[in-house]
Amino acid sequence: MNDPLDGADERGVIEQKVRRHRGGDVETALDHVGQEWPVALVFNGISHAVMMCTPRELEAFAVGFAISEGIVERGSDIRDIEVTFHREGVALPYAQVELTIVQQAFAALKEHRRAMAGRTGCGVCGIESIDLLDLSPERVPDTGFVARLAPDAITRAASELPSHQALTRITGGLHAAAWCDANGGISHAFEDVGRHNALDKLIGRLVLDRIDTTDGFVFLSSRASYELVRKAARVGIPMVATISAPSSLAIAIARQAGIRLVSFCREAGYVEYEGA
Amino acid sequence: MNDPLDGADERGVIEQKVRRHRGGDVETALDHVGQEWPVALVFNGISHAVMMCTPRELEAFAVGFAISEGIVERGSDIRDIEVTFHREGVALPYAQVELTIVQQAFAALKEHRRAMAGRTGCGVCGIESIDLLDLSPERVPDTGFVARLAPDAITRAASELPSHQALTRITGGLHAAAWCDANGGISHAFEDVGRHNALDKLIGRLVLDRIDTTDGFVFLSSRASYELVRKAARVGIPMVATISAPSSLAIAIARQAGIRLVSFCREAGYVEYEGA
Repeated sequence: MNDPLDGADERGVIEQKVRRHRGGDVETALDHVGQEWPVALVFNGISHAVMMCTPRELEAFAVGFAISEGIVERGSDIRDIEVTFHREGVALPYAQVELTIVQQAFAALKEHRRAMAGRTGCGVCGIESIDLLDLSPERVPDTGFVARLAPDAITRAASELPSHQALTRITGGLHAAAWCDANGGISHAFEDVGRHNALDKLIGRLVLDRIDTTDGFVFLSSRASYELVRKAARVGIPMVATISAPSSLAIAIARQAGIRLVSFCREAGYVEYEGA
Repeated sequence: MNDPLDGADERGVIEQKVRRHRGGDVETALDHVGQEWPVALVFNGISHAVMMCTPRELEAFAVGFAISEGIVERGSDIRDIEVTFHREGVALPYAQVELTIVQQAFAALKEHRRAMAGRTGCGVCGIESIDLLDLSPERVPDTGFVARLAPDAITRAASELPSHQALTRITGGLHAAAWCDANGGISHAFEDVGRHNALDKLIGRLVLDRIDTTDGFVFLSSRASYELVRKAARVGIPMVATISAPSSLAIAIARQAGIRLVSFCREAGYVEYEGA
């Protein structure tokens, strides 16, 4: 109960004994904390990455990661997915997702890995020098979605999001990524200790359910950094809305991609960036 | 003015034209956005990593990164640091920090890079499979700091932090890492679009100024994830306080390291985790 590594795999939270300090008073209580687990992603038998992730909806996470990182181009390139949880024989419990991808995508991944071999960079994924940095996002197709957006869609999504944040309600601290229609109605929402993971879970679920990613917008509980906008661009999402602030590069990447970026989205209003 | 990639290098923010939507009203205004730039870290002429970072206090950032990532063990292992800003001839402006480190540390880095060669993982820095994952943090020395902590030190730090967040005040969205004494007084604070970067800048500055990192605590505006606790453990910081929630792994790593972890630190109180 008080072991943060224990807890049911699919819940995403664990129970944790805490002491709440308030003035001079201390109260012992049972609280909930978001799970953060190592999750190994294996493609056609080859270990590719270990992400720190909340261990639920891992199938959607793996599909979203594979697509938003450009390992596969579409959901049908993934032939099989198997999620396993490992609790014994290692220092830490972890999860593993084994994906079987079509030969063409696997050949491209092997080629990419060969080109990467010898690189040992950290930071921007595997990039060790500026020469290797490519921040040019895909240009999203103009499907007219933004023109069809209801005037109150953003504020409606902002007001609806909390009802989709069950884990945040009991832990006080997970990120959420939600999928919204032109009226701001939320059809899907995912939570994770990492905002990139939450977005990957959402993208993965949309792809698995064959939902048109060019006909809706993503609403994120976090700030907007360049990487979240780049992931959205990869699947043609026309608009990214965030509760908190954007970075300068998020604005620049949104502009390049043709994505509408709005931030500080609250029930009372939102902020839009010129040129973005 | 409305180019998010423009702006003075050392300010950390840029001016940005925005449209504020509120009800049916739209107001055009000049706002400020936190800068996010690629920053290349080069050790003895070898490119090692590119981080996305707010381009100020880059000397402290590079020193903190080198130490918290285990590239050097102490500040005196770094012989020279040169920061340059590049605005032309590439698609994006970027900064570069060239560090000259002592031969022993450079030999170890080359050896580490040789051992890493062929790994192409992303996620947990360069780690592609669970077998390579080592999350065992250093055990911090017990200097009796936590026992000396004033009863109101944490709430005092929480109430003082905003006065050290000049960039957050005008952008609404940067992270901060502050260094506090046993009374909760803040002596140093750094802001960045990334919470890991803010902590690296703080660690780097403490090391450059030869401040005892075992005699104080770090106060972070963010949540607590495993990586922030691991970085603190690397330099023997005895306590980590965060404004927002911890993850399960942050609690586990703090426990292993012997670091006291407190979260939801506000002026009114804070939460402590059993065993952490």
